[in-house]
Amino acid sequence: MSVADDSDTDQVLDPARQEALEDGQLRGEFVQEVREALEEGDEQRVQELAEPLHNADIADLIEQFAPSERPDLAAALGDQLSPEVIAEMDDEVREDLVDLLPPEVVASVLSELDTDDAVAIVEDLDEEDQKAVLRALTADDRAALEEALGYPEESAGRLMQRDLIAVPQDWDVGQVIDFLRAAETDDLTEEFWEIFVVDARHHPVGTLKLSHLLRAPRPTKIADIMLREQTLVPVDMDQEEVALRFQKYALISAAVVDDAERLVGMITVDDIVHVVRQEADEDFRRLTGAEEGGLNERTRDIVRQRLRWLVINLGTAVAASIVIGVFSDTIEQIIALAILMPIVASLGGNAATQTMAVTVRALATDELTVSNTGRTIVKELRVALINGVAIAALIGIAAGVYFAQPLLGVVIAAAMLGNIVIAGLAGLLIPILLDRADIDPAISSSVFVTMTTDVMGFLLFLGLATAVLL
Amino acid sequence: MSVADDSDTDQVLDPARQEALEDGQLRGEFVQEVREALEEGDEQRVQELAEPLHNADIADLIEQFAPSERPDLAAALGDQLSPEVIAEMDDEVREDLVDLLPPEVVASVLSELDTDDAVAIVEDLDEEDQKAVLRALTADDRAALEEALGYPEESAGRLMQRDLIAVPQDWDVGQVIDFLRAAETDDLTEEFWEIFVVDARHHPVGTLKLSHLLRAPRPTKIADIMLREQTLVPVDMDQEEVALRFQKYALISAAVVDDAERLVGMITVDDIVHVVRQEADEDFRRLTGAEEGGLNERTRDIVRQRLRWLVINLGTAVAASIVIGVFSDTIEQIIALAILMPIVASLGGNAATQTMAVTVRALATDELTVSNTGRTIVKELRVALINGVAIAALIGIAAGVYFAQPLLGVVIAAAMLGNIVIAGLAGLLIPILLDRADIDPAISSSVFVTMTTDVMGFLLFLGLATAVLL
Repeated sequence: MSVADDSDTDQVLDPARQEALEDGQLRGEFVQEVREALEEGDEQRVQELAEPLHNADIADLIEQFAPSERPDLAAALGDQLSPEVIAEMDDEVREDLVDLLPPEVVASVLSELDTDDAVAIVEDLDEEDQKAVLRALTADDRAALEEALGYPEESAGRLMQRDLIAVPQDWDVGQVIDFLRAAETDDLTEEFWEIFVVDARHHPVGTLKLSHLLRAPRPTKIADIMLREQTLVPVDMDQEEVALRFQKYALISAAVVDDAERLVGMITVDDIVHVVRQEADEDFRRLTGAEEGGLNERTRDIVRQRLRWLVINLGTAVAASIVIGVFSDTIEQIIALAILMPIVASLGGNAATQTMAVTVRALATDELTVSNTGRTIVKELRVALINGVAIAALIGIAAGVYFAQPLLGVVIAAAMLGNIVIAGLAGLLIPILLDRADIDPAISSSVFVTMTTDVMGFLLFLGLATAVLL
Repeated sequence: MSVADDSDTDQVLDPARQEALEDGQLRGEFVQEVREALEEGDEQRVQELAEPLHNADIADLIEQFAPSERPDLAAALGDQLSPEVIAEMDDEVREDLVDLLPPEVVASVLSELDTDDAVAIVEDLDEEDQKAVLRALTADDRAALEEALGYPEESAGRLMQRDLIAVPQDWDVGQVIDFLRAAETDDLTEEFWEIFVVDARHHPVGTLKLSHLLRAPRPTKIADIMLREQTLVPVDMDQEEVALRFQKYALISAAVVDDAERLVGMITVDDIVHVVRQEADEDFRRLTGAEEGGLNERTRDIVRQRLRWLVINLGTAVAASIVIGVFSDTIEQIIALAILMPIVASLGGNAATQTMAVTVRALATDELTVSNTGRTIVKELRVALINGVAIAALIGIAAGVYFAQPLLGVVIAAAMLGNIVIAGLAGLLIPILLDRADIDPAISSSVFVTMTTDVMGFLLFLGLATAVLL
């Protein structure tokens, strides 16, 4: 066994794999070594280098190369580019690579994967390629994939795998163990942590943990050791909802049932970890109107997605400018207003975004409910009042002193307090209203919220100044 | 078995539990029913209502009540307020409740929990309470907790549980099964999915999946069916790093080792799901300078955390105002500049935040590496140029036409293009530089990035206007 001195280094039992990694990432030097082998056309060396790596690391390796270099690397990797490696890749990287492969090759890759991984690859193909690939599959595989593709995107039906162990409820422990031992290894899914118990109509009636099965004597009836309380996932449930159930009840796997309550598949927690991460990533990027796919998205898609939001933002910025335009006479007379007005808008925007970030996440994770919304509004108002008074006092005194005009200080302080209170309410209520209207608050809140604080900031400050100072 | 008609409703096998839930949340009516029973002082009814609920749902129920009502509810719940319910609660809610309990009661709660859950409760107590609780524990439990508390916060040592199954490498399958059956149920952890195989010095040498164990005949040597390749987690590794390993290698559990490479605990994937969610939530809120704890944080803490960021933001807004002040003579002559200048700053800020959101998440999830940083910079520049030209053309033409001053259109278009390109670079490079300097980019990027785009936006626009239009 290798003993690592540096406790921050990945500790895996294979020293060659450990060599290639540092802090969980592929080492820059290692990637460089692969690059050199590739440039020299030394395919054997490329494969030797990749051999000790985990599938996920080979997928990472491919992502480290520029899009234009990836086809060559993929070709050089040969057998090291296994179906599992392809399943591990980032969606965008995989799409580009799969597009280059003939349908028969894609079909043979799919046939070796679990349904959920195969679906993830097929769903990204364009319609024509999808048809060609499906045609190249065996009838069984095709039927399974077509059924999965029939479920909505990001639903339990797409996430689930069909390979699972289900046993009738009248068996005993010995029968289950004999069944598991007798089955051909190829016929059984490798990864299972729980066995589902079903009645004669294939309705799930309980779950059997492997640890309980292992510890019970052979004649024990499984009905006596199975857990009867279980969370069943409807096949059309959104994956975000499924993930919340897994989190709440600390599930390791869950049975997926169709409309007739029959067991049709299972979802395992390792897929849920990805969903939690992916949904959080999406919310995070959507809040700013960035693209959805992250680092490997194509330039064209990034431009299109971001530009849409910039154009919307241009609209809201113009709306704020129109408010300024209304007060242009006032500004002409007191130029200090032009200097100070962005401060009121900026602080309001920041205060609103703080509240909005908390609200959007609380909505996404089911924490904000009918029962606690009222209490939360009161709390946000209290926070906004306290912070508003503090910031208003600071800027009011500073502006009054600097411009030697106490009344200007009073005006900016009042506008600031008003805008921060409005910001607190907007940051809370806008996401809640969007959510009630079934619009994803993560995508759209930000625009409405900052428009509100910009417009109200300028309106309050310049309006008050016109009334008080002229 | 109950058959639900609405496939969106939680389907659990216990009809009473199903009654209380809707879309995975407690129904408002159910919470109201509990509230009425509580107000009538009918403790028996409260307990009846809570009885069919899952521990996680009882924890949710308590969180639905206002902080001032929670002690009464907790008292009324009686035995329904089990140690597991307390472990499921939100940190802030639990802290308040645990503060009300005498140390002996807290100690008896802790003694029934796994180490990781017990640590999560103890670590939040203030020092005095912590000491009192530790004193009330048995020597064994105290030693285990004190050792766990000796590891850094959010490290593998805090996250791991000590109860695990480890067997010597020279055993066969029959010996393992007999060992599991012979052990007292109380002595064995309930939840285990893998068995760790150790050598004579308690160093892990492999992992045994329960599914493999179940399917192997009794005389099989476990050395022949164990997986030799495994990811070992050093006890002081940060939980975010641990979570990345679980995601990458789709782990279900992992062995935790001390400095001498001895097996000291295990981390299971259900805890990792929480870490992934918690770290994403943190990043999301930190990006805006909101508080760290979410919906149940105390008002005092929220005010303190948010105010700090508002004050910093006040500083950066004043810096931008100073730039405007430099050009006050120009603005006095061309009042249109005051109307248009927020547009340049706002769009720059939005473009920068888009890039920043992608960069911060890519850094947090180890996607941005030495090998692809250069390529990413080129891509961001290209995106910024394309979007910059598009937005500059839009606003340039509109401003030139509206103010009937073509040169003003040219000035704002040039400033806009420049600011969006600067925004793209700032959104990418500032988080990367902060990360290299070991400062969490999620916390601090936002301030620096928006200050850059505000200051540069005003400087470019007003500077160009002064040079060209006067």
